[in-house]
Amino acid sequence: MFEIIFQIENGEPISVSANQGDNLLEVARSSNVAIDAPCSGNASCGKCRVKLLEGDLDSLQTAHISQEDYDAGWRLSCCSKVTGNATVLVPDIAFAYQQRMKTADLSTGEEVAIFEELQAEIKNTGISFCNEFTTVDVQLSEPTLDDTMPDNERLEQELLKMTGADRCKISLPAMQNLAAALRNSSFHVRVMGEQKEDSFLVYAISPAADQTPLCAIAIDIGTTTVSAVLTDLETGRLLSKASAGNGQIRYGADVINRIVEQTKPGGRKRLQKAILDETLFPLIQLLCKTAKVAPDHVMRVVLSSNTTMNHLLLGVDAGPVRMEPYIPSFFHYNDLYAAHLSLPVHPWARVFLAPNVGSYVGGDITAGAFASLIWNKEEFSLFIDLGTNGEIVFGNNEFLMCCACSAGPAFEGGDISCGMRATDGAIEAVTIDKETMEPVLTVIGKQKPVGLCGSGIIDVIAELYRTSILGANGKFTREGRRIAWDRHGMGRYILAFASESETGREIAITEVDIDSFIRAKGAIFSAVDTMLAALEFETDMIDHVYVAGGIGSGINIKNAVRIGMFPDVELEKFSYIGNSSLSGAYAMALSDEARQKAAEVADSMTYMELSTHPGYMDRFVAACFLPHTDAGRFPSSFQE
Amino acid sequence: MFEIIFQIENGEPISVSANQGDNLLEVARSSNVAIDAPCSGNASCGKCRVKLLEGDLDSLQTAHISQEDYDAGWRLSCCSKVTGNATVLVPDIAFAYQQRMKTADLSTGEEVAIFEELQAEIKNTGISFCNEFTTVDVQLSEPTLDDTMPDNERLEQELLKMTGADRCKISLPAMQNLAAALRNSSFHVRVMGEQKEDSFLVYAISPAADQTPLCAIAIDIGTTTVSAVLTDLETGRLLSKASAGNGQIRYGADVINRIVEQTKPGGRKRLQKAILDETLFPLIQLLCKTAKVAPDHVMRVVLSSNTTMNHLLLGVDAGPVRMEPYIPSFFHYNDLYAAHLSLPVHPWARVFLAPNVGSYVGGDITAGAFASLIWNKEEFSLFIDLGTNGEIVFGNNEFLMCCACSAGPAFEGGDISCGMRATDGAIEAVTIDKETMEPVLTVIGKQKPVGLCGSGIIDVIAELYRTSILGANGKFTREGRRIAWDRHGMGRYILAFASESETGREIAITEVDIDSFIRAKGAIFSAVDTMLAALEFETDMIDHVYVAGGIGSGINIKNAVRIGMFPDVELEKFSYIGNSSLSGAYAMALSDEARQKAAEVADSMTYMELSTHPGYMDRFVAACFLPHTDAGRFPSSFQE
Repeated sequence: MFEIIFQIENGEPISVSANQGDNLLEVARSSNVAIDAPCSGNASCGKCRVKLLEGDLDSLQTAHISQEDYDAGWRLSCCSKVTGNATVLVPDIAFAYQQRMKTADLSTGEEVAIFEELQAEIKNTGISFCNEFTTVDVQLSEPTLDDTMPDNERLEQELLKMTGADRCKISLPAMQNLAAALRNSSFHVRVMGEQKEDSFLVYAISPAADQTPLCAIAIDIGTTTVSAVLTDLETGRLLSKASAGNGQIRYGADVINRIVEQTKPGGRKRLQKAILDETLFPLIQLLCKTAKVAPDHVMRVVLSSNTTMNHLLLGVDAGPVRMEPYIPSFFHYNDLYAAHLSLPVHPWARVFLAPNVGSYVGGDITAGAFASLIWNKEEFSLFIDLGTNGEIVFGNNEFLMCCACSAGPAFEGGDISCGMRATDGAIEAVTIDKETMEPVLTVIGKQKPVGLCGSGIIDVIAELYRTSILGANGKFTREGRRIAWDRHGMGRYILAFASESETGREIAITEVDIDSFIRAKGAIFSAVDTMLAALEFETDMIDHVYVAGGIGSGINIKNAVRIGMFPDVELEKFSYIGNSSLSGAYAMALSDEARQKAAEVADSMTYMELSTHPGYMDRFVAACFLPHTDAGRFPSSFQE
Repeated sequence: MFEIIFQIENGEPISVSANQGDNLLEVARSSNVAIDAPCSGNASCGKCRVKLLEGDLDSLQTAHISQEDYDAGWRLSCCSKVTGNATVLVPDIAFAYQQRMKTADLSTGEEVAIFEELQAEIKNTGISFCNEFTTVDVQLSEPTLDDTMPDNERLEQELLKMTGADRCKISLPAMQNLAAALRNSSFHVRVMGEQKEDSFLVYAISPAADQTPLCAIAIDIGTTTVSAVLTDLETGRLLSKASAGNGQIRYGADVINRIVEQTKPGGRKRLQKAILDETLFPLIQLLCKTAKVAPDHVMRVVLSSNTTMNHLLLGVDAGPVRMEPYIPSFFHYNDLYAAHLSLPVHPWARVFLAPNVGSYVGGDITAGAFASLIWNKEEFSLFIDLGTNGEIVFGNNEFLMCCACSAGPAFEGGDISCGMRATDGAIEAVTIDKETMEPVLTVIGKQKPVGLCGSGIIDVIAELYRTSILGANGKFTREGRRIAWDRHGMGRYILAFASESETGREIAITEVDIDSFIRAKGAIFSAVDTMLAALEFETDMIDHVYVAGGIGSGINIKNAVRIGMFPDVELEKFSYIGNSSLSGAYAMALSDEARQKAAEVADSMTYMELSTHPGYMDRFVAACFLPHTDAGRFPSSFQE
């Protein structure tokens, strides 16, 4: 038995016992030492670096650790075995998240405009933005020694008269505030409640002069990032917004790794805690603080997420999701209240989960497809959600078919050595001069570059390919001052030399990055391709393409088509609709009818299982080229 | 600014800043240092002893600290002011509680027999012991690639067929266990649920072979002690029992002191935490552990407590309870679920509060009066609950009147220097030889004595009075080896010399103790007296007297009458019914009809406010003698 001391950057050291040969990442996880490991220990992401300070480890030197770093003590914890006592430095994962996961949803005016336009379009379909929350101004008679009715009965009697309800129920937070609210305002109070069937439900009570809003929260829980908004239930006004990395990321970058982790002892609790306590609770508190709203005034929550995420969030076993015959515990689950999850909002707040369609098409796609309004059009629309999972919906007001593919986190800047979210410092657009091979960068926040976001990666690959710096197989074919090679022979294109970047470190895209990205775009395209083929639709029969996801409004659709990511249809058919999962959740929070309609959309979608579909693998392999092995399918790829 | 270090016995030291002249008890409370102070700092109980280890304090030397103890550094913290840096030793309050508050409810076979007899009598009235909890044995078809319905829909479809319900709702704990329960038992499961109106509510699910019971918990929350039982909802069997001191005691011994404390900043949260987190949570966990029942199998909770206790428990402002016109926030409150209080039971468990009747007659009296069945008899019954508050109900099946008086904790062994609960080591009965003045003690557990419990105190006072050792005014009138006097001239009767006791410390009853007890019994008798007078009833019109409370089955009714505690009616009219609040709560947990009936009992009781009633004070003063200033009212007092 040896002692491993994890020296946590900005934290307390943690001492753990370990046996000869134990995997260091496993040792860390078993003691809740947070090491960033999105690939869940497959040696593929290179993020689980720790620095050996004392003692020894038996570590593989992978391509992720340079010789210089290795000499300085850096090791991948997933590739290290315990051989004796050791002390290792663990980088601050919170900081790593912040850098890597900082999200861009609604962070720019352009994104907000897209969001609001979508809400307006949903309203234009005639869906009523109504809910049953209301405020009632109540004046009660004051009690005396001859009129000693308790406060709650006094209030209930008056409310029944005023609302016509048969029954009045008073929530605990309202009860806790009842005596003070009455006595601080001469028994003239404002009651915030919900008219529900024959009952009037009292959520909150305050002195009559109070004007704070009744609120709802909508949250999109992505595998990688979480975005949330707080809205006024009566006016529909957006009051605050916030985003964060999904705290589960240290247990694996994709849903499969997380499901594997949740089946380990204590895993389900760990994963639930990571998304609830560590991610959602602070996010909700931040939303309330920013909007200056008391938690008790948040009376409804809508959560939109994929099937695995909503299972893990509830602490429900997601294991069967990945075992044949792939049966989740639920598609619809409507019996949940905030108190059951200890969410820091009103305990009576209903928690609505956007309903799932299948094991790999979840509530986020229901919400997104709902928000895209493709279910309301005669024309044939293709809806593509670019996330860690890519999901595709195709159809119109008569049918909807959907499928999912695993794209990995590349579109959000993950799995890419200099990748980052579309936020300040991100290179969001690139052009490259064919002669000089020199790049022109557009950086968010007009500053020196920090890294590359999804739209920037699309651009740089498209430009490298257009300028023949990159071959169709994703390998560099030219030499120059911007091209460099490491000792393993892996090439990279330098977008910014160390001196040109914000961080003082070189920003480059490597052949490994390009390979990752090509596989991601290949997964998306082949999914579209397979589904259209199954439906016997040709590319030119697509009337609209809605592109959703956190890739950012900076996406250059022309370049995305050029590299074979989207089908080659006229550019004007494309619309980027932002985080449609969040948009759908927002509408569902405000409108009972929207929620009803979204449930119908979920029920009307036919789920197609790609992994077992004949021909999918061939189509995927064919799509893992620039733009495709059948280049004739991408005529625009060869126009300047 | 000075530094006060509280050296906690068996704990970590706590360092606090304090100003010249600050009261030491207040300094401790402001920093959550737990000092036992049932009188809430009135210098009357003598329990807030701390030992000065270093530095100085400006302390009054009260009768509660002997010269020897004072010289050793012992001080009352409520009588000490800060004059500089100081370090004090704080005795372990948990241990002090254990000693002082260890409860006797249902701890003897006799008590359990009384409890079970009462349940049988309640059933004999024809009240149906039915509830809507049930178990359903369900066999589902297993899913296949062609039948991919999610687990919850599969279960719901079958349950709707089997139960005839229109809707099925599945709780989160059931959902969390659903996949495993189905897959561990070939989709043959046991569903535990409740048929409620048109819905079937699924609380828990387990493999078909599981036989663990569906349970309910009933808790009597007294001002001083808390007693709880866990029962099988289907069979009504008592599965486990547990008791503890009410953790709020350090904020004051009676409801008035607690209400004062709750109005201080943060006070309401502190008091709620003391009863919930510190008292009920561990008690519930202990009940479940003892009965080997998972928390999720506890599907109903009934809480029985006085009005102040149930307000503080919910975190509801109890301030108005003690301010004219004395209006509580609620009598009935029926909208509470376990999740709202984070109770460690099933989050869907309804939490029923026995309804209150007035500001000072609470749910405990409703439950107790219900259990006594006085509402079901033609004869006139007197119900007396001996607790920290004494409550009286009088009436029959046509009317019920009730009132409350503050008796203090004397009946439960509090406020008495050698007082303790009726548990092992407690002197529960005493006789004294008139000639020799030597006592014969009956000690619970047949061991050396530790202290005096309520029934023992009644005996010793009655015997001291009968043997003319004590005068009618509660002062000692004879001398002898058992009588001693301190330097303030306060007399005491020594029940056990140091060498005779278990603890090696003398066990005595002092004139101060006797005075406390006489005021307690005077409060009870004068309340009965005032109420009967108001109703124009004579003592001999009383057909039954039901004595309830934690005083223990050892109570010698004859002696209690002899000292003027109860009206002088024939002994055979008295019944000791134990903790009737707990008995009532138990029936209410098992039977929906009992709960309904108890609510009717509450609504039918007329509350009489004693404190403003003309003549009450005179009657109280008259009752503060042995047996009474009008001794003719207690003829049995003078029979041998």
